[in-house]
Amino acid sequence: METKGKIAILTGGGDCPGINAVIRSVAKKAILEYDMEVVGIKDGYEGIITSCYKDLHFDDVSGILTLGGTILGTSNTANPYQYPSRRGNRTEFNDLSQVALTNIANLGVACLVCIGGDGTLDIANRLFRDGVPIIGVPKTIDNDLRGTDITFGFDSAVSIATEGIDSLHTTAQSHHRVMIVEVMGRNAGWIALYAGVASGGDVVLIPEIPYDIEKVVGKVKERNRRGKRFTIVVVAEGAKPKDGNVVVQRVIKKSPEPIRLGGIGFALGAEIEKLSGIETRTVVLGHLQRSGVPTPFDRVLATRLGCKAVEMIINQRFGYMVGVKGNSLNEVPLEEVAKGPRNVPSDEPLIQEARSVGTCFGD
Amino acid sequence: METKGKIAILTGGGDCPGINAVIRSVAKKAILEYDMEVVGIKDGYEGIITSCYKDLHFDDVSGILTLGGTILGTSNTANPYQYPSRRGNRTEFNDLSQVALTNIANLGVACLVCIGGDGTLDIANRLFRDGVPIIGVPKTIDNDLRGTDITFGFDSAVSIATEGIDSLHTTAQSHHRVMIVEVMGRNAGWIALYAGVASGGDVVLIPEIPYDIEKVVGKVKERNRRGKRFTIVVVAEGAKPKDGNVVVQRVIKKSPEPIRLGGIGFALGAEIEKLSGIETRTVVLGHLQRSGVPTPFDRVLATRLGCKAVEMIINQRFGYMVGVKGNSLNEVPLEEVAKGPRNVPSDEPLIQEARSVGTCFGD
Amino acid sequence: METKGKIAILTGGGDCPGINAVIRSVAKKAILEYDMEVVGIKDGYEGIITSCYKDLHFDDVSGILTLGGTILGTSNTANPYQYPSRRGNRTEFNDLSQVALTNIANLGVACLVCIGGDGTLDIANRLFRDGVPIIGVPKTIDNDLRGTDITFGFDSAVSIATEGIDSLHTTAQSHHRVMIVEVMGRNAGWIALYAGVASGGDVVLIPEIPYDIEKVVGKVKERNRRGKRFTIVVVAEGAKPKDGNVVVQRVIKKSPEPIRLGGIGFALGAEIEKLSGIETRTVVLGHLQRSGVPTPFDRVLATRLGCKAVEMIINQRFGYMVGVKGNSLNEVPLEEVAKGPRNVPSDEPLIQEARSVGTCFGD
Amino acid sequence: METKGKIAILTGGGDCPGINAVIRSVAKKAILEYDMEVVGIKDGYEGIITSCYKDLHFDDVSGILTLGGTILGTSNTANPYQYPSRRGNRTEFNDLSQVALTNIANLGVACLVCIGGDGTLDIANRLFRDGVPIIGVPKTIDNDLRGTDITFGFDSAVSIATEGIDSLHTTAQSHHRVMIVEVMGRNAGWIALYAGVASGGDVVLIPEIPYDIEKVVGKVKERNRRGKRFTIVVVAEGAKPKDGNVVVQRVIKKSPEPIRLGGIGFALGAEIEKLSGIETRTVVLGHLQRSGVPTPFDRVLATRLGCKAVEMIINQRFGYMVGVKGNSLNEVPLEEVAKGPRNVPSDEPLIQEARSVGTCFGD
Repeated sequence: METKGKIAILTGGGDCPGINAVIRSVAKKAILEYDMEVVGIKDGYEGIITSCYKDLHFDDVSGILTLGGTILGTSNTANPYQYPSRRGNRTEFNDLSQVALTNIANLGVACLVCIGGDGTLDIANRLFRDGVPIIGVPKTIDNDLRGTDITFGFDSAVSIATEGIDSLHTTAQSHHRVMIVEVMGRNAGWIALYAGVASGGDVVLIPEIPYDIEKVVGKVKERNRRGKRFTIVVVAEGAKPKDGNVVVQRVIKKSPEPIRLGGIGFALGAEIEKLSGIETRTVVLGHLQRSGVPTPFDRVLATRLGCKAVEMIINQRFGYMVGVKGNSLNEVPLEEVAKGPRNVPSDEPLIQEARSVGTCFGD
Repeated sequence: METKGKIAILTGGGDCPGINAVIRSVAKKAILEYDMEVVGIKDGYEGIITSCYKDLHFDDVSGILTLGGTILGTSNTANPYQYPSRRGNRTEFNDLSQVALTNIANLGVACLVCIGGDGTLDIANRLFRDGVPIIGVPKTIDNDLRGTDITFGFDSAVSIATEGIDSLHTTAQSHHRVMIVEVMGRNAGWIALYAGVASGGDVVLIPEIPYDIEKVVGKVKERNRRGKRFTIVVVAEGAKPKDGNVVVQRVIKKSPEPIRLGGIGFALGAEIEKLSGIETRTVVLGHLQRSGVPTPFDRVLATRLGCKAVEMIINQRFGYMVGVKGNSLNEVPLEEVAKGPRNVPSDEPLIQEARSVGTCFGD
Repeated sequence: METKGKIAILTGGGDCPGINAVIRSVAKKAILEYDMEVVGIKDGYEGIITSCYKDLHFDDVSGILTLGGTILGTSNTANPYQYPSRRGNRTEFNDLSQVALTNIANLGVACLVCIGGDGTLDIANRLFRDGVPIIGVPKTIDNDLRGTDITFGFDSAVSIATEGIDSLHTTAQSHHRVMIVEVMGRNAGWIALYAGVASGGDVVLIPEIPYDIEKVVGKVKERNRRGKRFTIVVVAEGAKPKDGNVVVQRVIKKSPEPIRLGGIGFALGAEIEKLSGIETRTVVLGHLQRSGVPTPFDRVLATRLGCKAVEMIINQRFGYMVGVKGNSLNEVPLEEVAKGPRNVPSDEPLIQEARSVGTCFGD
Repeated sequence: METKGKIAILTGGGDCPGINAVIRSVAKKAILEYDMEVVGIKDGYEGIITSCYKDLHFDDVSGILTLGGTILGTSNTANPYQYPSRRGNRTEFNDLSQVALTNIANLGVACLVCIGGDGTLDIANRLFRDGVPIIGVPKTIDNDLRGTDITFGFDSAVSIATEGIDSLHTTAQSHHRVMIVEVMGRNAGWIALYAGVASGGDVVLIPEIPYDIEKVVGKVKERNRRGKRFTIVVVAEGAKPKDGNVVVQRVIKKSPEPIRLGGIGFALGAEIEKLSGIETRTVVLGHLQRSGVPTPFDRVLATRLGCKAVEMIINQRFGYMVGVKGNSLNEVPLEEVAKGPRNVPSDEPLIQEARSVGTCFGD
């Protein structure tokens, strides 16, 4: 059992409900079943460079199952292979991977469990190729990682988005408005698609289906004609108009801070109001979607992934991450993730089902 | 398209979040894609015997996606093959199936969509064998129907149970108590298992694993020794002590209304308190679990099942119900359901995973 | 009882949780206790100009207690004294008050109950002076109406804002960020103050206390020094920097749509990030705050106000609105409302209390 | 400032959302404004007898604002004047007040802040008369303490009860059932009254108004006749039938554990079902009502009470508790509380208002 003696856990990238549930599950199982020591690395890869760790005893991971965020902290920017440092006004990037590898070696762990999204897992894969025994646990509210049917955090994000849209329904109805709700999804439209179906959104716009503004406005007008004097538009932040609908891009361009302002939602709203003559309001759900308490679904999923990760440590399946396939958990090479995001495929059944109950995708 | 002209929908058995989402999806797709007429049957099979129907136009099923319960009403008792009627103090059962068959024939529908649990689907199967074109949609918060991996309503029930347990945590902690939470599950322990894992329950008792009260009390005491002065016990209403632990049964037996009183939770609490000397309180979640707004997960699932049911109508797959297999929907003979409940199997991975993070199943 | 025969209800201005609870309470009491007829006017003053009404029977107002929005619809713009109409590209305003007065006279109601904010109640007061028997019910989520200690909708808005801030806490903590949450309150800071205290916000910025950006950044830095690597800033949309802090205004000015974009939150975030060097993110809660199900507190309050309004009808207290004073309801001249918003006074106890537990108001 | 040097906080009696918010507010203000030391006494008066304390530094009370329960623990039974100890099978009570007084003296605190209900504050008053400088903070979800218009925890309890009743509405509707919801309130009906009004309960039964079962059944039947095939009955656990309606008492008496079983709800349900012939179900909300996260309203109130308590320490207003009077906080002699519970008075306006919108109180 020598090699199993000690493991480390690291959480990288954006916030995601359920991270602590994974940490808890990895640590509890490792301690209870295999009598391992568990050490947490602080603030993602930053903690490896700066040697910031904390021991995770059984009681340290008790009571964190429902806690949002990550008790280990995270960092979006720290990358051992391109470590940023500020020089006056500009940022310089250096390869500090040797520091990282040395520090990991000094930690003396049998395995490093990396919980993160594509960025974190990509670095994990490089560390693995440089000799570090690594197991990955995929994490993203966007549900767009390759090699897994679903990621923890997604159900929570969809729930928050859906609740938001639910409550905006009555405002839209009372005021006879078009209500635009911008949800997360820069590359993939999973959140918009699921929250759109779950909330009965009238229009759902996702990056994978460039939209024709005329079709969107047509839907708004058609509803008005039928006596439905409000329309709910669910739009992913990465949704794109088809060529020729340049108004949106122009509005976004004029904004001083296009991305932070949740450009698409406001720009789209302005355009719909102009073309339809119907009052339009926009709400950008933003960080609310990655905050707060994970849903029970995500807690169960996260717990299962953590258990599987420990099994993989025991079986020395380094260089792999835990994946979900149907009802089962499986092992997926970390390289799989690097092949790019898992977009909503054009033959996704839920798109067809949504269309068949009347949802407009703007195409 | 003659045969597709008109369909009927019926909802039977107990309440379950998501029923209206199925009704909406069946009706919207049938109307929008196939220009069908849709009629709703009131109060389950009762409405067939009494010819109580209402037309479901597109607008009748708008805005019901989030609504708990069923807009059609339901009945637990009406069964055309054993129709109950009161004679003074006692109830007599008569076979009114000929009335039912005649009324259905008079309705002139191409298909009757039956949304219900084992009881409802068993009657649906008999009607099918008697010549009625029927499609089933499985419905139960208990998740214990054969032929489908998951049922809508289950995620909602687990969510409500989990939220309840979450909030009771602080009470248990402050008062150094054992807190018993009794959840639904007369035959199958799915809700207790999932809510138990999702809420980090210390002890989870399900019908499939008869418990040894000594093991349960042992867990309570062990936690106390380790400084954890509270314990959360999640118990399915159908959980059973092993032979020899007759105290519980005795307490239940003395109660004037054993089943309604949520016998097991209170009896178990009394016994734990007696054997451990630690204050114990019981909460029975009861009908809260089948009430209220469905989770987004259940709304999406219910919408998908409804769409699939319409496809099956078009393909004349009568005598089948919609099932879920991994990520796909499939068609399952109604007879499959009659083979009895789908219990938690002894090799269920989630049980092993729960054990590995420290959950006690009382065995 | 001749004069009591028939009453009308109108809802004007922005959405506010609890409006339907008032409608229900007015209608139920008027029908049950005084056998009145109740008619609802559609879409605020618009419905008076266009004679759009609907009868409100007892069953029409059953089941609406928990419903957000208003079943009567509303309009922000319709004003009989300055009725807007479009002429090509511009909007013209005409005095249609004679039309309104005639239509109201034709309705033959003993009283018109106007549920609305300062705009709606100001028009109500003019109609009253022009001879219409009117009772007002104050309505605003902002809690800034004169003549009443509290308005329904406020508790709901504070609840939604607080829940949002609660859930952003973990994101801020995990990422060591400053998290800015912009809440409603263009003139008055009540929502920011209450939600800020309820959520333990570190900085609360309200219109009544112009802020010094240096003080805000100082608080952020001081927390960092003390090891608290995150800061929650709750900012009312109408918060203003002191003279000299023009950066914020400049950023807002550059924006193509300053007001809709929730300018202050993003601009403030950009400035804090620049001055403190700490990553900052902004969430604008926007319309979420006026949407959805009213809190039990607001439902009780709205019910009480509706009952009082009916008493006032019976007592012919026209030209007055219902007000809240301590634990009692009282009658307030409609003119009182016109005297301008009720701002947070400088000696508001809650400000002192918040300061004493460490909240920074930026001054 | 010698005398202000150190204060202690103690929490006694049942759980109540908002206790931690009071602890936080007392400690933060005492530390920030007066540079005091704060010590927490563990498990109520138990901790005084056993000398179990923990220091409360600023960071210890950070992040506890939203936490249910009490971080100090509590005890229902420990009373220095009648301290229970077990002798074999029976419990003996001894006067250990000298031990308590000595231990408090040894603590060397300028004041002991007692957060608790009537029991806790009664003991606090005795300690005060025995020379301990004490300030009380009233605490009960039941809202039935004399000397204060409202207590923190009440709004949270009403919210949980109301949400429960809200969600049971759809079940009642779908099944055409009478749904009984038993809420807390052994002596006073405040929770039942407020939650009943907030949720639109059809029947509300409170201890202060003994009910006539015939009136209750009459209401159920009348609703049925009017086509409303469901009825919601909100019943306080202490509700009592009028003389002569002994059936309920008989059923309760037969039960092996009358109080724990939430006797009244089930017994009432059985009787209504028998007399009306309509299916009836009961849900006992029990401990859910005192669990979980406090509402924003309660967090603000609790924060204010804590601040006031510190002011009272500074002003040496020992022997008093903080009270709420209208919009203000005031000082109330601890003796006031001992005069018995504050019941719902017969002229409570909310009762009249509830009646006027159709609520039946069973009288």
